[in-house]
Amino acid sequence: MNAEIIAVGSELLTAERIDTNSLYLTAQLNDLGVEVTAKAVIGDDRERLAGAVRAALGRSPIVILSGGLGPTEDDVTREAVALALDRKLEFHPEIVAQIEERFARMKRRMSEINRRQAFVIEGAQVLPNDRGTAPGQWVEESGGVAILLPGPPHELKAMFERQCLQRLRRIVPAVVIRTLLLRVTGMPESDLDQLISPVYKKYVNPVTTILAGNGDLQVHLRARCATVGEAETLLAEVGAPIEALLGDKIYSRDGDALEVVVGELLHKAHATVAVAESLTGGMIGERLSSVPGSSRYFLGGFITYSDAMKIELLGVDPELLAHFGAVSRETAEAMAAGARRRANSTYALAVTGVAGPETPGDRAPVGTVYVGLADAEKAVSFHRQFLGDRPRIRAFTAQMAIDLLRRKLLGRP
Amino acid sequence: MNAEIIAVGSELLTAERIDTNSLYLTAQLNDLGVEVTAKAVIGDDRERLAGAVRAALGRSPIVILSGGLGPTEDDVTREAVALALDRKLEFHPEIVAQIEERFARMKRRMSEINRRQAFVIEGAQVLPNDRGTAPGQWVEESGGVAILLPGPPHELKAMFERQCLQRLRRIVPAVVIRTLLLRVTGMPESDLDQLISPVYKKYVNPVTTILAGNGDLQVHLRARCATVGEAETLLAEVGAPIEALLGDKIYSRDGDALEVVVGELLHKAHATVAVAESLTGGMIGERLSSVPGSSRYFLGGFITYSDAMKIELLGVDPELLAHFGAVSRETAEAMAAGARRRANSTYALAVTGVAGPETPGDRAPVGTVYVGLADAEKAVSFHRQFLGDRPRIRAFTAQMAIDLLRRKLLGRP
Repeated sequence: MNAEIIAVGSELLTAERIDTNSLYLTAQLNDLGVEVTAKAVIGDDRERLAGAVRAALGRSPIVILSGGLGPTEDDVTREAVALALDRKLEFHPEIVAQIEERFARMKRRMSEINRRQAFVIEGAQVLPNDRGTAPGQWVEESGGVAILLPGPPHELKAMFERQCLQRLRRIVPAVVIRTLLLRVTGMPESDLDQLISPVYKKYVNPVTTILAGNGDLQVHLRARCATVGEAETLLAEVGAPIEALLGDKIYSRDGDALEVVVGELLHKAHATVAVAESLTGGMIGERLSSVPGSSRYFLGGFITYSDAMKIELLGVDPELLAHFGAVSRETAEAMAAGARRRANSTYALAVTGVAGPETPGDRAPVGTVYVGLADAEKAVSFHRQFLGDRPRIRAFTAQMAIDLLRRKLLGRP
Repeated sequence: MNAEIIAVGSELLTAERIDTNSLYLTAQLNDLGVEVTAKAVIGDDRERLAGAVRAALGRSPIVILSGGLGPTEDDVTREAVALALDRKLEFHPEIVAQIEERFARMKRRMSEINRRQAFVIEGAQVLPNDRGTAPGQWVEESGGVAILLPGPPHELKAMFERQCLQRLRRIVPAVVIRTLLLRVTGMPESDLDQLISPVYKKYVNPVTTILAGNGDLQVHLRARCATVGEAETLLAEVGAPIEALLGDKIYSRDGDALEVVVGELLHKAHATVAVAESLTGGMIGERLSSVPGSSRYFLGGFITYSDAMKIELLGVDPELLAHFGAVSRETAEAMAAGARRRANSTYALAVTGVAGPETPGDRAPVGTVYVGLADAEKAVSFHRQFLGDRPRIRAFTAQMAIDLLRRKLLGRP
């Protein structure tokens, strides 16, 4: 079964804003086994929107509209859908009473213009809105349905889940969808695709999608079957050889982010970590501390942007710095050892490198990165040469450093 | 003059991907004085796409398509537009030669399937692609034009700028567009809108848009006029009262980010800064160091997530910590003073607070934040109570801290 999504609002046709409700709606529809075959964004123009609704209902049995249900003259979705279906709008005084009550709870008076929100398309079911004033509408027409939802995402999501899911299940043929999500790091996207495409290209079902950003990769497999058993068997059949090919490059199978996985490994090992950051300037600490409860294993660290800070805060030997340079294997190891000693942590991660855009003096070229990792016994280091601009080099460095700690905790350096 | 944009590709109809080429194209079209009245995303379906193209050309004189120009069976844009216009596709051997040459430069052989990319719609102008194999096409039809561009953003942008801008200027009535961008911080979006809407609501031209995220606000004014002089006069007329209302809440008028503005102020004052971060875990350092050349004024700092780190790294008095608690005005000031002393910097920023989701022990409620700011004379502190989840509280805290330093450097506490 197919669906189309229409986002309504002239602000969504500017260079600054984008419709993201359709991503949420697509995920929900896909989970029901419904494919989205077209999306559109239409401005606050009644005739144009009516034309788009008429065309969409001619092609697809489910058409979801988001936005344009507010109280102002610009909010034309009710009128446009009524026009498209050639139906009247009917005034529902009980909706006005509900909106008045909502305002009263906030100790405010309802504006007269809110009465516009009480007009319902002839024959439509009203979808109550717990989170705002605009009710939604469910309008059936010759085997199809137009669903009118409010634009604010938290209102749209609540209304979809509470009012639309059950109704849609009644009209959509039962399909079971199961997904497998592998999160992967430590290889370029092109290598990942080359490695696993001989497996997944043999299958139209499950559908495989690869997403990549800043060294973090996601492999999504989505199976659509008649039963849970079939879907799980299919995912196992396709997933197993992919997992075997990727091995410990896979860091999570449940959607958890890398910093969450590392946090759990640290917590289980009753271990703590500190950081010493040069080119990343705090990015690694920011990621580790983004996890709720991270204070159990993340002690903190040092942002040693200048050489003086490396010497004073981490106790890096000035002669070592002068001899090997700030961007070197030796400095990365000395930073890690110093951070661990001063923070009194089980492990320490240290990064030093050149993020660009310029290479100061006679230092290493832009993209040169050393990551140091210290435990009680010794400090080791890893070298990478990254390509790209400053934000990309910093993000890849943080990702690599956190992954090195994961490998250390798994005993796989 | 109006335009519509159609993004082609089934991958853009999944829950994971979104068309962003249309944002770039909208900005470019707006700069030419062209409004975008509708956008669509269509999957790799020849008939469906042909229908969308026909309908769009019936409504708007400019229709831009992105994507679907690759060499595979899934790439249907050429065929769909030919079908929509009822024209033939013609094979251009010179395009094959160009693609072969491109492969040869990369020491690779062209695949046979790339020959598909050499088909050109009857009567179309070929738009060369410097950055990929897929040439674009410019197809005029009874006063309108369909423009076929490749999907990869860097290919699309280069082709649009080099091949389309001049051609569009010839068919679009001359309009001058000038914009004013004010970047603002230190107030909620709703307060900003309430304050300035009495000014901007009086004008349809310029168009005013407010964008907000994590405490950072942007006010965009876009004036469309016949001459540069008119546009600038209009922007000054509307901009001046808005600027007067916002005062020093405006931190930049040229698009620069807050950390860039603060960096310039520090550099001009020959001053340096260090940070001591608790709940933000490195986020402030990460932002300050994201600016190229920030090593001139950002020395680094301390991520003191645990109490022990606050005592050992910053020299915060353990009795003060025990008496007032880690989340207190006194601790924020002691952290700032300690960071400044140990980093030997002109200024230091320190933050402590509760990012949630839980309040450990009997500490302050989630969202309680203290920011300390130290110079050679003294340390002062500021208190805020933020609402929201952990990422939001952390981001608002970092924004507030960096803005406090800006105000200090401007002598406006």
